[in-house]
Amino acid sequence: MTPAKKSVALSGVVAGNTALCSVGRSGNDLHYRGYDIADLAASCQFEEVAHLLVHGTLPTTEELVAYRARLAAQRALPDALLQVLERIPAGAHPMDVLRTGVSALGTMEGEAGHHAADGARAIADRLLACLPSMLCYWYHFSRSGQRISCDSGASSIGAHFLTLLHGRAPSAAWERAMNASLILYAEHEFNASTFAARVIAGTGSDIHSAITGAIGALAGPKHGGANEAALEVMGRYTDGAAAQADIRERVEQHEVIIGFGHPVYTVNDPRSPIVKAIAEQLSVADPGLFEVAEAIEAVMWDAKRMFANLDWYSAVAYHAMRIPTDFFTPVFVFARTAGWAAHVIEQREDNKIIRPGANYTGPEDRVFVSIEER
Amino acid sequence: MTPAKKSVALSGVVAGNTALCSVGRSGNDLHYRGYDIADLAASCQFEEVAHLLVHGTLPTTEELVAYRARLAAQRALPDALLQVLERIPAGAHPMDVLRTGVSALGTMEGEAGHHAADGARAIADRLLACLPSMLCYWYHFSRSGQRISCDSGASSIGAHFLTLLHGRAPSAAWERAMNASLILYAEHEFNASTFAARVIAGTGSDIHSAITGAIGALAGPKHGGANEAALEVMGRYTDGAAAQADIRERVEQHEVIIGFGHPVYTVNDPRSPIVKAIAEQLSVADPGLFEVAEAIEAVMWDAKRMFANLDWYSAVAYHAMRIPTDFFTPVFVFARTAGWAAHVIEQREDNKIIRPGANYTGPEDRVFVSIEER
Repeated sequence: MTPAKKSVALSGVVAGNTALCSVGRSGNDLHYRGYDIADLAASCQFEEVAHLLVHGTLPTTEELVAYRARLAAQRALPDALLQVLERIPAGAHPMDVLRTGVSALGTMEGEAGHHAADGARAIADRLLACLPSMLCYWYHFSRSGQRISCDSGASSIGAHFLTLLHGRAPSAAWERAMNASLILYAEHEFNASTFAARVIAGTGSDIHSAITGAIGALAGPKHGGANEAALEVMGRYTDGAAAQADIRERVEQHEVIIGFGHPVYTVNDPRSPIVKAIAEQLSVADPGLFEVAEAIEAVMWDAKRMFANLDWYSAVAYHAMRIPTDFFTPVFVFARTAGWAAHVIEQREDNKIIRPGANYTGPEDRVFVSIEER
Repeated sequence: MTPAKKSVALSGVVAGNTALCSVGRSGNDLHYRGYDIADLAASCQFEEVAHLLVHGTLPTTEELVAYRARLAAQRALPDALLQVLERIPAGAHPMDVLRTGVSALGTMEGEAGHHAADGARAIADRLLACLPSMLCYWYHFSRSGQRISCDSGASSIGAHFLTLLHGRAPSAAWERAMNASLILYAEHEFNASTFAARVIAGTGSDIHSAITGAIGALAGPKHGGANEAALEVMGRYTDGAAAQADIRERVEQHEVIIGFGHPVYTVNDPRSPIVKAIAEQLSVADPGLFEVAEAIEAVMWDAKRMFANLDWYSAVAYHAMRIPTDFFTPVFVFARTAGWAAHVIEQREDNKIIRPGANYTGPEDRVFVSIEER
């Protein structure tokens, strides 16, 4: 069984208000501003959901066309930022590239002294538009010295990313898959990266600082990094039977299997069946990894009554779209930036600094000894 | 009086354990690992306190000599980082420069996959050694195109900074003042920037991510940015009488005066008398600003029973040492990096993700309407 030691601090402690998201109230539900994630993922473009989170409403057709055009117009990066990206070594983790890129962009296009909500929304749009450009520019330059154009001609953020990554426009199926995946990853209440963004915003700091910090938090293997780790797990096996035997043994040895269970959902992760269907569709021509993933899902349920979370089949879907494994968490950033920005704006409206207390466990009243006598 | 609305979230809620610091238990005390701040500030070099926080003990003379030599050897920056700094515009806030510099350094000298405490301590030392280099290199390059050498020959971090800033070694009095100031700013339990670092570290992320996020949090005017704001307040006046009349009027209008009061201390800020004595010594030749600061301190006590906090007289002391105002919070970074790093190591040992809950205030179960019908 899972270790007895509590692995989450502040679990269930209310750290603030939000009108953006409710999660896990029935054990397996997720709503963005009151809308069920299943409806949003089935029917929306990611830009509709970004508009919902950042600008407050699901857009009309006319508003969506205008919003997409506004985003498409903001994909290019300043020359100074391109030069910064060129200095980042090829061996860097792509999350560290995005963290540095956002921070550097903040020195070039930072918020003015007073932090109006409209200004923050404009910066959120700018980041949603240009994060894939940052990542792909660095990727191609660091590997082949190629200075790609960040003008993809794509109409969606998902297609923009896949076009810059692969050097050609994605199929309609891949664009749809990317779109749904970005919707699923866009927002999740007070998760650790969002909470980091709110702690930073709570001091009155700027939105680039908040999102830079959030990227840093998301990089951790207990958080966004889990989708990369999930692929490593399933990538060990070439067939389902071998996977099941080995995973069963690992579970018996109390090993934690990344991609299963969730601190907030008790019944199921409502995003998991949605991304599983997408992963299955994308795997028709080459079903091996999907079959291994499904075999492990079955044994984890059988042995531990643990369900696959969003990260599990996201790894299968991303792999099928030939996204490099260490880009999985950066794709999460492309999506979650919408949620982070909305939370920064909410935290500012709440106007509170987040400053908890600590339980002191160290020595009491030590006598100071001067250096000569130590 | 102060506004009724609670301005601190999670106030008094225990978010974790720490053996590093206890604060405000008697209303006006502060201890680092059990040692009284008054003893540390009166008798130590900053590097002794950094050693206490990062490495766990107050060093012997021999250990201190070795530690200072180790720090002095790590002041130079990689060429790629110098080139990144050269791309940051002159108009950027120095805090954004440090945030970007630390993030970029993390892409060049990042932690290896497993995060051993010794590795984190080595990175903490590297950052303590080279943060002043980063700031001053950017400062001189962005203003005059000068590529300074980061080899100051100074024996302390404080003198290293002042030497690179002013182009000559500081007086003994300035070096002592900088030293004491860095000690006072080095650590403060679960303040917002430290808490941001712990939230980021809690996901298993790397120390550069944690410190990058902490710098972003410290930049806010409700946190580290307060020392810059304090100088703006006192800088408005040329004499004490005019300052008192105007501040009294502002207080009557319920204006918050930056530099007074503290969410944790109820009686007094124990650091304040220490830095006040330093500020007074440094102001002997040109006492105008100190007198204004003291006049405002008197009226704030008389009108509101509010005491000056650390930021108030730090602003006077830094101004006397001709530190540019927007470098005040970066100096805070030079000091607090010791505390942040120690907290990152503690959070890793605790091995918990920090994930609070939220109070949902948004709409319930909205009916989804497809875009064609909106």
